[in-house]
Amino acid sequence: MHKVGIIGLGSMGGAFASQLVKAGYQLLAWNRSQPSHTQLLNAAGITLVDTPREVFGADVVLSVLSDDESYKDLFLKKGLIDAIPEGKVHVVMATISPDFVQRFAEEHNKRGLHYVAAPVLGNSLLAQSGKVHVLASGEIEAVHNAEAMLRALGSSFRYVGLAPEQANIAKLAVNLLLNNAVQSLAEAFALTEKVGIEKEQFAELITQTMFSGPAYQTYASAMSQEYFHPAAFALEMGAKDINLALELAKNHGLQLPVSKQVSQCLDNAIQAGFSQYDLSALLLAQQHKTE
Amino acid sequence: MHKVGIIGLGSMGGAFASQLVKAGYQLLAWNRSQPSHTQLLNAAGITLVDTPREVFGADVVLSVLSDDESYKDLFLKKGLIDAIPEGKVHVVMATISPDFVQRFAEEHNKRGLHYVAAPVLGNSLLAQSGKVHVLASGEIEAVHNAEAMLRALGSSFRYVGLAPEQANIAKLAVNLLLNNAVQSLAEAFALTEKVGIEKEQFAELITQTMFSGPAYQTYASAMSQEYFHPAAFALEMGAKDINLALELAKNHGLQLPVSKQVSQCLDNAIQAGFSQYDLSALLLAQQHKTE
Repeated sequence: MHKVGIIGLGSMGGAFASQLVKAGYQLLAWNRSQPSHTQLLNAAGITLVDTPREVFGADVVLSVLSDDESYKDLFLKKGLIDAIPEGKVHVVMATISPDFVQRFAEEHNKRGLHYVAAPVLGNSLLAQSGKVHVLASGEIEAVHNAEAMLRALGSSFRYVGLAPEQANIAKLAVNLLLNNAVQSLAEAFALTEKVGIEKEQFAELITQTMFSGPAYQTYASAMSQEYFHPAAFALEMGAKDINLALELAKNHGLQLPVSKQVSQCLDNAIQAGFSQYDLSALLLAQQHKTE
Repeated sequence: MHKVGIIGLGSMGGAFASQLVKAGYQLLAWNRSQPSHTQLLNAAGITLVDTPREVFGADVVLSVLSDDESYKDLFLKKGLIDAIPEGKVHVVMATISPDFVQRFAEEHNKRGLHYVAAPVLGNSLLAQSGKVHVLASGEIEAVHNAEAMLRALGSSFRYVGLAPEQANIAKLAVNLLLNNAVQSLAEAFALTEKVGIEKEQFAELITQTMFSGPAYQTYASAMSQEYFHPAAFALEMGAKDINLALELAKNHGLQLPVSKQVSQCLDNAIQAGFSQYDLSALLLAQQHKTE
């Protein structure tokens, strides 16, 4: 398989496309708005097509739209799903709700199409350097058909389970940890700064000892260097993900008190005008919270 | 300097004592209650003395009591501080409130004694294998006198600042991150378990990708293996530390909404009977939270 389709060339989709080109794939690509750098794309081996239907000339197509609504609109309302030839594999890489994944996968099955869920862990900066972690769930054979391509996108690949929503659930739980960690960092940085500890010193202290993983490294570094914009992972996307996790918890009768409070902090940061800022801007919102 | 005094042989103090013996130090030790294994201690090169005053036969004495009250009681009310010969270095390794540290350090200065704050990052299991991280603040010369001994206790050593409370503040901020991280893990494990993802699978997923640091490794492993008792770091100590951090924030006019909610979760877990359990038992408390 050397030809791959891709729908969505935003910050994540664009990063994936460039990784695939590097790995030697030919790409058929469609984006809702016309990218401005068409010639550059063509030169790189990416063929931009006029309709999303044409992308399914490839046997495996990956899509990276932003949310449930975008998928419902393009595939169901506008009927793209009915125009896809039987037997194609659709790899959905977006973080969408587990409930919708179940329904969307069924719509694929009914039409003889194969649905693979493959959300990734990591922001668009990590995606650009092929350092995201890929999760996948769905029918084993369909996942297998997409595996080489998915491995080209990141530094690790994990098969999470047969039910297509499993990978999305795992991703939501990881992003719940991430959102909580970043808000906690915002509180710790706001506190240490108030009492006179240098941000760089505190960042070094935590990331060289107990909190040395990539999540804390990324955001401790962003906060200590006051990097808040443009977004590697937009704050509004963080809010979307944590709300999906809270909805899932509620559907299972589970209360998540701290995650709920984190969601509130994200909402407040959005109200304060930081929705398009990086998740690290939770620090900016936190710095204005006084008793 | 080959002779060191130590006050407090609890889970942390005992671990430090054994590291110092391994490093070739002779120890003069005092504990509030008589340890049951006196002969073993003597054989190991630890001399148990009958009064805390005798410990100050050594030029450098480290102490590991549990909280502000224990220090106030022993050193101030019972007058130990007035019995210490001039010029001695007292290394306080407990996590106590920054306000009390300021006052306690002044009481030392007035009497010609040297106060060094040296809290550590890491629980008693890490302390037993010399893997804690040591923070230190106070007069440079006094810290220098204790440095070789402090380096023998852990895998890293950091000088945080001249003001004696600085190391305690940094430690409180790290423990705030820790408490928030463990409660967030409890919520993520409770959620993934409800929807049918195996605990071991989720633990592997997070600790091999975005959350690979020791804090998450320790508690993801404890939760997935259902290790809740006996405590490597008691839940009630977590509650104490986060309340100290919240008090510090309040004194500086700062509101920390998520940390406050985590403190509430710790209080609820204590109410539910988990105060002497490991911090990982936040998962047990979380599993009973339903909407």
